[in-house]
Amino acid sequence: MSYFSPSIEKLIESFEKLPSIGHKTATRLAFHMLDLGEQETNDFISSIVNAKKSLKYCSTCYNISDTDPCPICASPKRDNSLICVVEDVKDIIAMEKTHEFKGVYHVLHGSISPMDGIGPDDIKIKELLNRINQNKISEIILATNPRVEGEATAMYLSKLIKPMGIKVTRIAHGIPVGGDLEYTDEVTLTKALEGRREI
Amino acid sequence: MSYFSPSIEKLIESFEKLPSIGHKTATRLAFHMLDLGEQETNDFISSIVNAKKSLKYCSTCYNISDTDPCPICASPKRDNSLICVVEDVKDIIAMEKTHEFKGVYHVLHGSISPMDGIGPDDIKIKELLNRINQNKISEIILATNPRVEGEATAMYLSKLIKPMGIKVTRIAHGIPVGGDLEYTDEVTLTKALEGRREI
Repeated sequence: MSYFSPSIEKLIESFEKLPSIGHKTATRLAFHMLDLGEQETNDFISSIVNAKKSLKYCSTCYNISDTDPCPICASPKRDNSLICVVEDVKDIIAMEKTHEFKGVYHVLHGSISPMDGIGPDDIKIKELLNRINQNKISEIILATNPRVEGEATAMYLSKLIKPMGIKVTRIAHGIPVGGDLEYTDEVTLTKALEGRREI
Repeated sequence: MSYFSPSIEKLIESFEKLPSIGHKTATRLAFHMLDLGEQETNDFISSIVNAKKSLKYCSTCYNISDTDPCPICASPKRDNSLICVVEDVKDIIAMEKTHEFKGVYHVLHGSISPMDGIGPDDIKIKELLNRINQNKISEIILATNPRVEGEATAMYLSKLIKPMGIKVTRIAHGIPVGGDLEYTDEVTLTKALEGRREI
């Protein structure tokens, strides 16, 4: 049984559809929305509309951006011969936060996952190969997620790209900084052992 | 330093302004919004616009509703002589969930709080008194929150209404069902003792 008016009910449902928002939070957000003034409501709505309208994919790296090419691809300070391949736009943010990487990116927008019906043609692999063919590339860093799908995608890409005579690397897997050997799962520990380096 | 395009940045900020949404959740919600199709985005926006447009306050009880009077005030099954006074629209939902209360409501839209500059004239007390004057009322149940402001508001209202010859009651305070005496604060325990009833 519903205790709300149909329009509130609909507003709550709208918020409930968002990720990580349950019924209680959706109710709180809906009532907050109703409390907002007209200006604030318009600001909220126009931020959504504007973002949807002005954002596009960079035609080089498929990052999401207001401009094409995106600021990273357009920057003269970045090394265009070094491409870091990631699954998602959000992974670029994570990498950029390190302030360590001075190359450019390529966003696959997914990973190969036969279980979900996602094959090599469904993600931006063709575009990556075109990019490699048309530019002088010194190294491809595969930074897909260390999960089954990400590993499979990395393997697939390395088998495609290595024969082209280009250096292909994979980011290291191991125990996270601040982590604890005792609580590390055996797969990670195995990877950490495999990836050990002389000091 | 910002890693996002200005439009994403703005969208994230919009979500961050919502209650109980931090930066990480706001980022997730913003990217989810960007992933939505045009239809879904329009549905989301129109649910906000429609709710803001069609919702009004019931001119009798100040509940929020698509209709005026609200469904509760309009229902012939409800006892119009029994008014439960609450602070907020959401309190009505909480009361309705009990399925016990068959009277009507009056939403004050706040509580007297001199610290926040909220006096008796800033909440719907005048409207309540008018309602009492114009209708045959048998009982007023004060269901303001058991906090300092809610208690003060209840005291204020009871002093105003009792001289009009109307029965004024306050909802009981005590140990919540499933609660534990050991972990109950002394104020609640005092209230529970004061409110003890013969069995």
